[in-house]
Amino acid sequence: MNDENVPLGVPLGLPFCWCSAMFVIFPEPIFAMTYCVATMIDAGFVFASDSRTNAGVDNISTFRKMKIFEQPGERVLMIVNSGNLAVTQATINHLEQAIRRNTEPHLMSVQSMYDVAELIGASLREVRHRDGPFLMENNIDSGANFIVGGQIAGEAQRLFMIYAEGNFIEAMPEVPYFQIGEVKYGKPIIDRVIAAGTSLDDAIKCVLVSFDSTMRSNLTVGLPIDLACYERDTLRLSHSRRFDENDSYMHTLSQSWNEGVRRAFAQLPNFEWN
Amino acid sequence: MNDENVPLGVPLGLPFCWCSAMFVIFPEPIFAMTYCVATMIDAGFVFASDSRTNAGVDNISTFRKMKIFEQPGERVLMIVNSGNLAVTQATINHLEQAIRRNTEPHLMSVQSMYDVAELIGASLREVRHRDGPFLMENNIDSGANFIVGGQIAGEAQRLFMIYAEGNFIEAMPEVPYFQIGEVKYGKPIIDRVIAAGTSLDDAIKCVLVSFDSTMRSNLTVGLPIDLACYERDTLRLSHSRRFDENDSYMHTLSQSWNEGVRRAFAQLPNFEWN
Repeated sequence: MNDENVPLGVPLGLPFCWCSAMFVIFPEPIFAMTYCVATMIDAGFVFASDSRTNAGVDNISTFRKMKIFEQPGERVLMIVNSGNLAVTQATINHLEQAIRRNTEPHLMSVQSMYDVAELIGASLREVRHRDGPFLMENNIDSGANFIVGGQIAGEAQRLFMIYAEGNFIEAMPEVPYFQIGEVKYGKPIIDRVIAAGTSLDDAIKCVLVSFDSTMRSNLTVGLPIDLACYERDTLRLSHSRRFDENDSYMHTLSQSWNEGVRRAFAQLPNFEWN
Repeated sequence: MNDENVPLGVPLGLPFCWCSAMFVIFPEPIFAMTYCVATMIDAGFVFASDSRTNAGVDNISTFRKMKIFEQPGERVLMIVNSGNLAVTQATINHLEQAIRRNTEPHLMSVQSMYDVAELIGASLREVRHRDGPFLMENNIDSGANFIVGGQIAGEAQRLFMIYAEGNFIEAMPEVPYFQIGEVKYGKPIIDRVIAAGTSLDDAIKCVLVSFDSTMRSNLTVGLPIDLACYERDTLRLSHSRRFDENDSYMHTLSQSWNEGVRRAFAQLPNFEWN
């Protein structure tokens, strides 16, 4: 409500670009003001990302923000991203090119998830180093974030978040998830539900409810949602699926959740003044 | 989770000040990174504000952010604020001084809520015009927001939000509330519950649940909460109360809500892969 004085949906670092969009026909940079969440529980991973991108509210598109790298029986890597779409796409392209050309080290050759996080960070730095100064000239943010989780044979499953600067942190048992993008609306339910011992079924439900809350409150996060699920130590992707506007499970979930929350509210004791 | 690269609890516009706080003993400016909410329903108003302020996470204090002006039978004005504490206090002091010295126009003399909003905006502009340039020299934000609601004899109840620039907007029946400060965590429950026909009892519960969600997720919003309640057309404040750390109703509410939400979650249908 108190954002009325701020041009809606426009990254705050982009005053010039916003002006140009009003008066000139320049393509605006596409920002994934997205929502991604990745949970690592004892049972495995649940990753989800929306696919809404926007370059101003008059230009909303759908791009996949989830990427899976898999060598069944040997490794599974799950990646989601947010930020400047040109930067995230270029980063992923660099990583894929290294695999295709077999330029070591690459995502399918390194021996640990730590190395995987380092490769993504290095690739992101390279892209930002190359493109950042040109974007800066027009006050355009080249920032991007990645979450990567997965398992490589011989190692435990691990989850990392890579900052826009290319450095990264690893998830801990106390906080077994990362979010990027529009994180606040969907955080409370994750905090209430997700713990190391949560089942994959519950984690899937929780992640989808978290998306439901986020989409209700922020138009720039929207269906379809990409969801992927990995069962620990299987070393192959268990399931992946896209939930679109017509998905009957998402409709049921959204409605049941709304009714359940309202019922929980109705059962709260009134406050007595006296 | 993704704020690790940002100094925690420090307003982003304050890099110099943050540095000075690490190396020199300067008092840091106090920011009410607070949460305030004001709902206007057919039955009246519910206003609430936390009272946590911070100047860095090592300096958290309690200041009242709610102010009531009342002439029973003639007018009730309820004001909450967020932002730079020196600025909000100076703004309120200017308004009070005008009343004490009977310098027309003042809050207790003007004939409409619109005039009230205009007076607050003008006072805020005066303070920022006086102090802003000095703050700017140290990259300190002089921004502040106010919400004012109330009723003056002969007029309907009305609710306004005043921007940091001193201009303002009025609440509409479709969105009968305003929030300022840390608004996102506590917004979903308000969106689900508050409507024109909501009872005062439900609005009170809803506002307190909204605070519970916010305090769970953001340490810089904290108890005590000031809550005030106005019944439409009575032209006197109905109730006001402070909920502190030891308040048994807040404990019960928080616990019941947590259980209710978890129950609602448990009742959601699982997703079937196939």
